[in-house]
Order: sequence, then C-alpha cells, then structure tokens
Amino acid sequence: MRETQIVERIRALARETAHPPQLITGIGDDCAVFRPRAHEDLVFTTDFTIEGRHFLRETHTAFDVGYLALARSLSDLAAMGADPAFCLVSLAIPAGIEARWLPRFYRGLISLARESGMALAGGDLASSGCIIADVMCCGSVPRGKALTRGGAKPGDSIYATGSLGTSALGLATRRGAAWRRHLRPQPRLAVGLALRNIPATSAMDLSDGLSLDLKRLCRESGVAADLTDDLPIAKGATLEQAMHGGEDYELLFTASAQARVPGSLAGVSVTGIGKIQRGRAGLVTFRGKPLEPLAFDHFARSGAGKGTGHPS
Amino acid sequence: MRETQIVERIRALARETAHPPQLITGIGDDCAVFRPRAHEDLVFTTDFTIEGRHFLRETHTAFDVGYLALARSLSDLAAMGADPAFCLVSLAIPAGIEARWLPRFYRGLISLARESGMALAGGDLASSGCIIADVMCCGSVPRGKALTRGGAKPGDSIYATGSLGTSALGLATRRGAAWRRHLRPQPRLAVGLALRNIPATSAMDLSDGLSLDLKRLCRESGVAADLTDDLPIAKGATLEQAMHGGEDYELLFTASAQARVPGSLAGVSVTGIGKIQRGRAGLVTFRGKPLEPLAFDHFARSGAGKGTGHPS
Repeated sequence: MRETQIVERIRALARETAHPPQLITGIGDDCAVFRPRAHEDLVFTTDFTIEGRHFLRETHTAFDVGYLALARSLSDLAAMGADPAFCLVSLAIPAGIEARWLPRFYRGLISLARESGMALAGGDLASSGCIIADVMCCGSVPRGKALTRGGAKPGDSIYATGSLGTSALGLATRRGAAWRRHLRPQPRLAVGLALRNIPATSAMDLSDGLSLDLKRLCRESGVAADLTDDLPIAKGATLEQAMHGGEDYELLFTASAQARVPGSLAGVSVTGIGKIQRGRAGLVTFRGKPLEPLAFDHFARSGAGKGTGHPS
Repeated sequence: MRETQIVERIRALARETAHPPQLITGIGDDCAVFRPRAHEDLVFTTDFTIEGRHFLRETHTAFDVGYLALARSLSDLAAMGADPAFCLVSLAIPAGIEARWLPRFYRGLISLARESGMALAGGDLASSGCIIADVMCCGSVPRGKALTRGGAKPGDSIYATGSLGTSALGLATRRGAAWRRHLRPQPRLAVGLALRNIPATSAMDLSDGLSLDLKRLCRESGVAADLTDDLPIAKGATLEQAMHGGEDYELLFTASAQARVPGSLAGVSVTGIGKIQRGRAGLVTFRGKPLEPLAFDHFARSGAGKGTGHPS
C-alpha cells in the first residue's frame, strides 16, 4: 500500500474519534490547528513505546500496542488533572510488516481515544527496523489548576491509587488479571480530575516504579519523604514488585494533613503511604533507612518501563 | 551516565532556549503547561528524523542531526504562517553511543530553537537499535489566520520560494553549498509570517518534492494545477531534481490573481510556477501532460525524505 493510501485509511479511522470544539483542523494539513478556550491552560506530554522495550510482538497484539502507546501518554495527562483534548501519533514500522498490523494498531489506539473523549489529530509515519511509536497528548485544565510535581510540603500526606506491583507481577507470570492489566493499563483520568478538588498539592503518575517516581516528586518539591510499611501491594505481588516495579500507571499524590481524602476516588481505591518531611530534596526513607530506587532506567539496565522524567 | 543525570543535563541546556510568556512549566514535570493568549490559535506538528533514512552518522554530525530534526518540524510551522512557541523532543539512541553524541544533538537542536525564539519544553528519552528523533512543534497564529492546504481556488497563481532541487543536488554531489543546504535546511518562518498578509489562499512546505506536494495541496483544495516551464531550478540541479527531489523545505503557496506578490519575501526569492485550475482534485499537469509524482514515499521505495502527509 502506498503512503497516501495508508494516510487516507488512518484519516478515515480518525473520524471515529471525538472532535473537541477547539480542534479546527485535524489530519491532512501541515499542522493540526487548535483554538483554545478562554481561561484554560493546556498540558503537553510525549512518550515512546518501543518494540523489545515496552512490548514484544510475540505477546502483544497490534491492538494492544496501539492501546498501550496512548495509555502511557494519557497517564501523564491524568497526573496533571487534565481533560484529554487530542493526540498526535508518530509511528515507525518495518517496511515488511504484515498489512493488518498498522490498521489494528490504530484501532487499539482509537478505542482508548474514544473512551477518553479525545481526537486523533495528526502524526507522522515512517519505516524503521523495529516498531517505535511516539504519542503526544494535549489536555486542558482550568487556568492555574494543573497538578505538578513541585507542590509537596513538609507535613503533607502521600497517597497512591489502586494497587502497586500489578504490572511487574503480570510481566513475571504472564497470566491472569495482572497480565491483562500489564497489557492494557488504565490511565487514571477521572481520578486526576477529582484530585483538582481535594486539592492535591502535587501529583505524578507511577510509570517507573514508586521508589524512583517518589524520589523525583520529592526532588521537584525540594522535600524528603518517609514511606509507611502499609503499601497497597497487589494480590500475589512482592514488596519488591510494588516498590520498584514500573508501568502500574497509578497516581502518586500529596495533600495537606487537613485535606479530606476519601478512601476511593472515581471508583479507584486511595491509600495513604507516607509523609512528606523536611530533609534533603529527593531523599526517600523506608523502615528508617534511605530507599535506593531500583526502578527502571533506560540507560542503566535493560527492561520495560516508561523511561522518562525528562518528559514533558 | 544515568538517565536522571542525562535529563538534568538536557534541562540545563533547555534553559538556553527562549521562554515564551505562555510557557508556565517546562522540562521536569509529567507535562509541559502552556497558557494560551487570547485570540490566538495554536498549530501542532510532529516529524520523525531517522538514522539511515533522513541522515547517516558518517555524513551528519550529532549537531547536524539535532538541527535537522527541529528544522523539519519548524518548516511545517512556517507553512501555516505560525510563530514558533515550543517543542517537545523524543529521542531514542543506541545504549552504546558515544557519550558526546547526545549533548551535541541537543546543542544543534537548541541553536535553531534559539534562532527561532522557541523553548525546548519537554520530551522523552529511550534506548533503541538506531537513532530516532521525533520532534513536536507548537506555534501560534492570530485567530483564524493559519494558512492551510485547503484554500486554493481556480484562477489562483502558484508560487514557490527560493530554488528547487538544491537538497537533491547536495545529496547527489555531497559537496558545496547544496550539500551544506541539505545538512542545514532553513525553515522559511519569516516568509510564512509574510504570507499571512499577502494573503496566501493556501500554503504547504516542500518536503517530499514539488510533484507530490503540489498534488497533495490540490487534493485538499479540490482543484487541479498546471505548472509552467519556468521553475526556479537550483543552479547545477536537473529538472528532475527540482520536480521530484525532497527536503528543500521551501514554501509552496497560492494567491489570487489580484493579490500583489512581490519578487521576494523576507529576503527569499518568490517565483510564479503555475496556475490553479478546475479539474480532477489532485491532478497536476506539466507541458500538457499529467505529472506523475516520483517524490519520496516511505512505503514505496527507500531514500531520504520527509515521509508524511499524515502529519499533523
């Protein structure tokens, strides 16, 4: 199939996604054109999904990969408390890949885009030795209401949504609910919106593992943190998996000790997991000792994970 | 170097770029946060730059690759008549690449970002078998003033900026001004701003070659086109290179027959190259015959080119 035909096919699929009123021009021009509403801030993130690193063709269908590629970016929007608006999808695939792979990738991506009420507004297409997707998501928040990593204060409580270690357990066992969850992570968009009202003082998504991600949040806020021994470990998972496993795509957030934080938000459980303290920025302690982040680092060892922190 | 250190280094480099007042949060959070001004539309594009396809490590320095990766996206902003605001840069590189490659890539990218008055606001970083960059650019235009591919009308004149075939000539000879131009294309940002005032009825950038790109513009506008025999062929280039060579990153635009189009805009020559006609949408004729686009198509044959049309 020629590129022009492929693009026409993607464009037809994109028509199945939502069309937010702000989107003036979508696929088909040099750029997508977006007309922001008054009093809204826009948030932007981009994330790679790479064959052999975030997925394998043996275990992930094309649909799974498309879904995952968008979910990884949407999770960052959730962490900012943003409403999804649109995405741009860059996809590089081997020239000899089976013809069905590409439309199935887009079907997976579009199924999650529809569920999230966002448009597929553009992207790029190229051939490459392995499959690499890069998905840019734009979301909106009321002016000044974006949740950042920089607002945690000493005395704040630390919370995590859902359970931790599910994805690492799924990757280890390749079966059951944990494996299904690893294949199709659920970005916590509704929880993110609810966090704006708590209000959370800081938030981020758990993509590289609690130990590394909490350290990052503390570094940006200029604070230290102490974790409790009561982590919401996923059923069947180990403490190690909960502490250092990546790709859970739960939200990590802080709120002042006076804030009323319910036991669940938008149907997802919320657990207090520690306290923000004065101390060296980025220091995380557990059971009285500094906790070393063993979570995934793309340039330190191989494995699967989100590989960012640079992000957006 | 660990990813955290690499990210800190990129963050330090990013401080050398412009900081538009709309950018509230840049690198270091889950998302970049942007506060649009009243009465502005935002435009978005994303483009891959892939080793072995758009550049070679033997012929392109890391600085060249960083520069090129941003130039390719900026050219799309120019085609919309947009002012650059910020970019997100996703970069996948082999784990064993020499340590100096990465900061030099960012230096090249940042030199062009500074020149263009835009911020480096985020991105992603991963390891991969070959070097793949995906650069998302956001620009702004006064409300309703974005130049699109869809506004050309029968009777409009067709224009191209600069000269055509330069990049193809440079790729063939690998020396002289044409080769330097191939390595460091100049996105026509100032010309794009001037086109808003002509006004141009449609515009796009010449990334895949005149024959294919004009066909795309005509298809989006629902019109046909006839090219004159007086194309601004680059000195030393062939008609073939001017007609089908990609990566010139000049602008292709149309204006009504009544519009006053000067012989140069922002110091760049402008040449009338044909007329828009009624006819089958996308039909381009030259010397009385339909012109077959031989320009680069990622999925039809190999070579170097921009490989989009899907874009943004």
